[in-house]
Amino acid sequence: MNRIYLDNSATTMVCEQAAKKALEAMTETYGNPSSLHTMGFEAERELTAARQAAAELLDAREEEILFTSGGTESNNLALFGAAQAKRRDGRRIVTTAIEHPSVLRVMEQLEKQGFEVVYLRPDSAGHISPEQVEQAVTPDTILVSMMLVNNETGVRLPVESAAPAIRRANAPALFHVDAVQAFGKVPIRPGRLKIDLLSASSHKIHGPKGAGILYVREGRHIPPRTFGGGQEKDMRPGTEPMPAIAGFGAAVRALPPFSEFGEQMSRLNSLCREKLSKIPGIMFNSPEDAVPYILNFSVPGVRAETMLHYLASRGVFVSSGSACAKAKPSHVLAAMDLGRARIQTSLRVSLSRYNRPEDIGALADALSQGLAELAKRPL
Amino acid sequence: MNRIYLDNSATTMVCEQAAKKALEAMTETYGNPSSLHTMGFEAERELTAARQAAAELLDAREEEILFTSGGTESNNLALFGAAQAKRRDGRRIVTTAIEHPSVLRVMEQLEKQGFEVVYLRPDSAGHISPEQVEQAVTPDTILVSMMLVNNETGVRLPVESAAPAIRRANAPALFHVDAVQAFGKVPIRPGRLKIDLLSASSHKIHGPKGAGILYVREGRHIPPRTFGGGQEKDMRPGTEPMPAIAGFGAAVRALPPFSEFGEQMSRLNSLCREKLSKIPGIMFNSPEDAVPYILNFSVPGVRAETMLHYLASRGVFVSSGSACAKAKPSHVLAAMDLGRARIQTSLRVSLSRYNRPEDIGALADALSQGLAELAKRPL
Repeated sequence: MNRIYLDNSATTMVCEQAAKKALEAMTETYGNPSSLHTMGFEAERELTAARQAAAELLDAREEEILFTSGGTESNNLALFGAAQAKRRDGRRIVTTAIEHPSVLRVMEQLEKQGFEVVYLRPDSAGHISPEQVEQAVTPDTILVSMMLVNNETGVRLPVESAAPAIRRANAPALFHVDAVQAFGKVPIRPGRLKIDLLSASSHKIHGPKGAGILYVREGRHIPPRTFGGGQEKDMRPGTEPMPAIAGFGAAVRALPPFSEFGEQMSRLNSLCREKLSKIPGIMFNSPEDAVPYILNFSVPGVRAETMLHYLASRGVFVSSGSACAKAKPSHVLAAMDLGRARIQTSLRVSLSRYNRPEDIGALADALSQGLAELAKRPL
Repeated sequence: MNRIYLDNSATTMVCEQAAKKALEAMTETYGNPSSLHTMGFEAERELTAARQAAAELLDAREEEILFTSGGTESNNLALFGAAQAKRRDGRRIVTTAIEHPSVLRVMEQLEKQGFEVVYLRPDSAGHISPEQVEQAVTPDTILVSMMLVNNETGVRLPVESAAPAIRRANAPALFHVDAVQAFGKVPIRPGRLKIDLLSASSHKIHGPKGAGILYVREGRHIPPRTFGGGQEKDMRPGTEPMPAIAGFGAAVRALPPFSEFGEQMSRLNSLCREKLSKIPGIMFNSPEDAVPYILNFSVPGVRAETMLHYLASRGVFVSSGSACAKAKPSHVLAAMDLGRARIQTSLRVSLSRYNRPEDIGALADALSQGLAELAKRPL
């Protein structure tokens, strides 16, 4: 059966260039980057090349990029680190109610440590406003953490409003952006937006699972959480996951220009909205101004997990909420106050550059048939 | 130029089976193990298969194996976790002066937190005695951490003496073993030795860099250090590094029987000792009873880094000290009180199943020639 993969915000297929590079790192340039001989230097060159690729995409300096094992580790390192670094300056942290669990669960820990965390809530369309950020940042705010693109709805958060708010409040805050769902898909210049810390992940952009980055703006310092052999400037010791890192670098270099990607995604998104609109009762949970590669909607009368399995049986792979939340009801849609029935029937389609218009057609057909076959069962 | 890789304790070439499995995880079974559809389940099966392979090798239960990003993370998780879990029962920790930096640097942090760390020192052959362990464990000892095989000398530490010592002292201690240089090379049964926590790494046994395990004995509980989407029983969230993990599982399954590996290594070790003995002035720093796959020796009159580069120029790759310590003088040989000249001229040869007797011959030839060419330069 032909597989139609529409779950690219959960993870992506590794692209040919990245897989090739990762394989090479396993069987040819397999030295330890810390080894003081030719094979070590070869591996170190691959490490540097990947770091440069990531830095260039962010219009950042190579020295500002730390490699980690992935987005979750980057978020943990950034948030615990920022709170620790600024703990003498205040105890208020501003974030949103629609962050990824790897931010929200860290915030719970920081609350236990005595920090006061303010969670900005979205409106019913999923938006957080610049005014909300503006009002939340006070002179004793030590950290602002906001995702750039929400993983469930594709909503863009007002990250550009944080630095001005911090400046106006004269707050000591560091500003962290979880850019896992944005990196490589929309342009981001952390230097320009005065972002201090930014997390991104390899496996959301057709790189291998097992590598991520934390951008740390020049002059900003946070303490490490791992101790050992000194790798990554002592910020993240441990032999570097070279197959994943080298693959990540290749995946970054293989990315299409943002404009090209954006246009392709917009066409697919429009097609998807058009086709799905014909399904009676369907409700879109992603607003029109969300990024085009994520589309969340609810299908009336069929529980999301049931529909998801039906679609999978037809070779169409989508998601109910996010992969990281497994079967739990979406905290994002709940924060939008969408109501139980709509939340329980919500599905997420997430696109990649490998998707074709036919994939959208297949999804729409499978959804219609699924509704016809399944909708009579009780929810 | 033919490459003779004798630095297998720094890292190893990924074996064919593991590379194939990792590639498959990147391009075929690339789903997210947390996804609730067929492609997620496929990935989850690979995760389980790798966990089973690691568990079987340790004669442990699947539930006792946690995946991490590597040995350094496993050591950090185990040590910080054990200290945290037992902090109300005492503040004494027993370890050795010859542990890996990912243990020693954590111990420094624990000292800052108020723990009292006792470092057992080796004798001049590199040995730590069971009596030293016996005497060091007191009723208020909360953690004993000892490596199974030293990464620089190959000395085996008396891990079998820890559990009886803890029992006799009636100490609340958890027992952690850093088995990174032993796993897959010598038999280890943590259940039998009453080891509570055990760290191992993929890339030392021809698996990809970027995966490690922490064995956590059934009934033992330590807190996590990373927070997020619930993966690895909430002990180590984050999308699993599937290429590295699946590759690791394949590498474990591709391991030769311990006896076969041990015999091959013993033959190569004997040959190496025999050939190197003919070099005037050479001194072996690994005792005769060290594991056969690690051989540390000092070459009179030529600084290790100089010889290392000379050997590399001839296509022979060895190490000075450990890769993780880069150019710093060895803390292990220093703890053995070997004296500055001997430490500064020490090299480590570390073998794998892919090495052949000819490799040893090439090493001995290159060393002899290096000595002839370089020994006249001042140290």
